[in-house]
Amino acid sequence: MTVPAASDVVTVAEVEDARDRLGNVVHRTPLDTSTTFAELSSASGVGLKLENMQRTGSFKIRGAYNAMSQLSNDARARGVITSSAGNHAQGVALAGQLLDIDTTIVVPEITPAVKIEATRDYGADVVVEGDIYERSAEYALELAREEGYEFVHPFNDGAVIAGQGSLGFELLEQYPDPDTVLVAVGGGGLISGIATALKDHDPDIRVVGVQPDGAAHGKPSLENDEIHRLTGVDTIADGIADTRLLEKTFAVVRERVDDVVTVSDQDLSVATALLAERAKTVAEPAGVAPVAALVSGAVDVQGERVAAVVSGGNVDLTDHGELARLGLKRLGRYVEATVLVDDWPTVLGSLTRTIEDRGAELDAFERTRLTAGDDPNRTPLSLGIEGSGPDHLASVLDELDELGNVDVVDHGEI
Amino acid sequence: MTVPAASDVVTVAEVEDARDRLGNVVHRTPLDTSTTFAELSSASGVGLKLENMQRTGSFKIRGAYNAMSQLSNDARARGVITSSAGNHAQGVALAGQLLDIDTTIVVPEITPAVKIEATRDYGADVVVEGDIYERSAEYALELAREEGYEFVHPFNDGAVIAGQGSLGFELLEQYPDPDTVLVAVGGGGLISGIATALKDHDPDIRVVGVQPDGAAHGKPSLENDEIHRLTGVDTIADGIADTRLLEKTFAVVRERVDDVVTVSDQDLSVATALLAERAKTVAEPAGVAPVAALVSGAVDVQGERVAAVVSGGNVDLTDHGELARLGLKRLGRYVEATVLVDDWPTVLGSLTRTIEDRGAELDAFERTRLTAGDDPNRTPLSLGIEGSGPDHLASVLDELDELGNVDVVDHGEI
Repeated sequence: MTVPAASDVVTVAEVEDARDRLGNVVHRTPLDTSTTFAELSSASGVGLKLENMQRTGSFKIRGAYNAMSQLSNDARARGVITSSAGNHAQGVALAGQLLDIDTTIVVPEITPAVKIEATRDYGADVVVEGDIYERSAEYALELAREEGYEFVHPFNDGAVIAGQGSLGFELLEQYPDPDTVLVAVGGGGLISGIATALKDHDPDIRVVGVQPDGAAHGKPSLENDEIHRLTGVDTIADGIADTRLLEKTFAVVRERVDDVVTVSDQDLSVATALLAERAKTVAEPAGVAPVAALVSGAVDVQGERVAAVVSGGNVDLTDHGELARLGLKRLGRYVEATVLVDDWPTVLGSLTRTIEDRGAELDAFERTRLTAGDDPNRTPLSLGIEGSGPDHLASVLDELDELGNVDVVDHGEI
Repeated sequence: MTVPAASDVVTVAEVEDARDRLGNVVHRTPLDTSTTFAELSSASGVGLKLENMQRTGSFKIRGAYNAMSQLSNDARARGVITSSAGNHAQGVALAGQLLDIDTTIVVPEITPAVKIEATRDYGADVVVEGDIYERSAEYALELAREEGYEFVHPFNDGAVIAGQGSLGFELLEQYPDPDTVLVAVGGGGLISGIATALKDHDPDIRVVGVQPDGAAHGKPSLENDEIHRLTGVDTIADGIADTRLLEKTFAVVRERVDDVVTVSDQDLSVATALLAERAKTVAEPAGVAPVAALVSGAVDVQGERVAAVVSGGNVDLTDHGELARLGLKRLGRYVEATVLVDDWPTVLGSLTRTIEDRGAELDAFERTRLTAGDDPNRTPLSLGIEGSGPDHLASVLDELDELGNVDVVDHGEI
C-alpha cells in the first residue's frame, strides 16, 4: 500500500469549509473547565469538550453531514447506506433527515432493539443482517452496488474527517492556546480531523490519541510507520474497538498526531465515575478515554493547559451505572465486604448503626451461604458500603470487626 | 406578619449588580436545546439551563458569593457561618475560599462523610451538631451570636436572592424570548431571583415554580396569599424538601411568580432517566423537577418556547443510578419478571437466547424461592430485562411464556 500525503486526504481549508457548513446544523457543545481534573492530573488547567452533548449523542453527525451535504443531486436521489451498530448510524440517519436523503443502515443481528429504534426515529431504514459487524459491512457494500446507494464510510473518507475536524476549531475558540489535546482513537477519523485543524493553527499543540489496552493499534502504527492490524479487540469501549487505522486516517495520523497512549478498562471505569460525579456528565466508555488518560497518568501533562475531548455519550444507563460503581470501587469509595456473624438477626442493628455513625452508607446487603470449612454457628453477610475514600472505608471495616460477634473475613481492594 | 413589597426585598438593579460581581467567579453554565424534551412536552422548543454544571454542582455559589462579597471588612474578618447539609454549604464554603473569609458550616449528625469532606475541601470548618437539621440551624445561630460570625441564610436574604437571579439574565442571553420558565422551589430563593430578572425584562414571561408532591407549600401559599407551612415533607428531592417560604421569598414569589405546579417522586425518576439518557447530564432529584413538570404534563406548554432550570447535580452516584433505573421502569423500558420453570438449569439457554433474539437485554438474574402453594417441581427465577419500550418488553415476556417449561407468573407494570 502506498500511503498518501496527509494533505491529499484532508486540508485545513476543507475543515474550515466543513465548519461553515455545519454552523447551523450541529450544536456548539459546551467546554467545561474543571479544577477537579486539573488537580487530579497536575495540569495547570483542564478543559472538557463535551461532545457527548452533540446531537445524536456523539461527534459523528459532523462527519456524516459534511460528507452527505457534498453529494451530487443524483447521488442524493439514490440515497446513502452505511453499516454501523453505533454512533455513526445515528449520525448518518440524522444527516439524511436534515438533508432529505434516504438512508439505509445495516446492523448486525445482536444490535439491541433500543439502538435500532433510536436510528429508525431519525428516519433511517434499518436492515438487520450479519452475525458479526464485518458481515453487515459486506452486506451494506453489496446493497450499495446493487441499489446504487452511496456508501458513507465511518472514518476512511476525507469529507467525513473534515467534518469531525470542525470540532477542533470550536475547541480553539472555547479554550484557546492548549498545550495538549487528548482525543480517543478508534478508526482515527476524529483525531485526524482535529489534528488537521489544530496543527494548522499552531504546530506546537501536542495532539495525543488515546486507546484502550484491548484495542491499541495506534502506538505500534506510529512506531513502525505502517498500519498495525490487531487480530482481535477486547475492551468495554465499543465505540473505539477497531482493529486498525485505514489508509486515509493513517496518512493523517502519522503526519499530524504526536503520540498515542493507552488506558485500561479499569481506568475507563474511574473516568466514568469521576465525569458523572464531578462534571455531571454521562459519557460512553469510548468517550471517557481521554479523561482516563489524564487521571491514570498515561500522559504527562504536568503544568500544562490540556483539553480532553469527551466524544460521545451513547451508553445504556444501567451499563453506565455499573461501570461508574466499578470506578467508585477503584477509587476506594465503595467496598463489598463479607462478614461472618453469630446470631445474625440480632447483630444487624449494631452493624448498620456502626456504618451510619461513621458517616458511611450501606448500599447493598445479602445473606449468603457458608463455604466448606466455615464455622456452622456463623452466618456470612455480604455488604456493599460507600464512603469518602480508602482510609474512611478501612476504618469502617475495622470498627465492624471490633464489634462482638462480627468478623470481617473478606473484602475487595480498597 | 406584614409582607414586605417585593421591591423592598430585591430589585432588578441588585440582580444586575450581582451579575456583574459574579461575572468572573461563576461558570456561565450551558444552555442545551433539546428536541427530545420539546417532543415529549409538545413545546415548540425546550432549553435546559444546566446549572448542575455550576461550580460546587449547584446554583448556590451565586447567592452565597454575592451576599458574602458585600460584607463589611469587619464582618469578613469575623467570618461567616451557616447550617446546611447540602448545596448551600458548598456554596458558602467556596465563596469563603474565593473571598478569603473563614467559614463555619454546621451539619446534622446524619450527614454522610463524603459530603463533609467535599465541604472541607473548599476550606470550610465543618461542625457536626444536631440530630436533625433544625437543631443544627439553632446551633449555628448560637455560634453566630457567641463568636460574632455573620449568618448567611440559604434563601431568606435579599443579597442571596439577587445572586441567584443572575442566572435569569444568563438564561435570557442564551435562550432569548422564552414563553415559560420552570424553576424548582424549596425555600424560594432561586425562583425569586430569576423571576425578578425575567419579569423586569418582559412581564409576559410566565415564571412557574415546581415542587414535589411531598413538599408542596407553594401553590397554597399563592392561592391563600399567605405563607403555607407544611407539618412535614416526604420526597426524594432533598434539595427542595422545605416546609415553607419565608417572608422575603414569599414577598417576591407572590408578586413575580405566576404559578407553582407539583410533580410526583415517580415523575422525578422518569426525568432523571431521560436527562441522563438524552441530555447526558447527571442531575439531583431537586434539579430535575422542572423537567419532570414538562414530561409529566404538570404544566401545559403546548407550542411554547420553554426554559427549564436544572439547578443542581449533587447526588450520590449509586442513588442516581437507582433512581434512573426506576425511571426506566416507569417508561416501560425495564421490567422485573418472575418466571417459574421446570428443570431450571436446562432452560437457561433457551431463556436467554429468546431475550437476545428479540433485541432485549438481560440485566439481572436470580434464582429465588418457592412460596407456599407453588408447585415444588418448579423453580422461580427473577429476571431484569431491558428493552426499547412497553410493547417490546410485553412481546418478550409473551415469547418467554410460550417456551416449553416456562411460565411468566409475575411482572411489574410495563
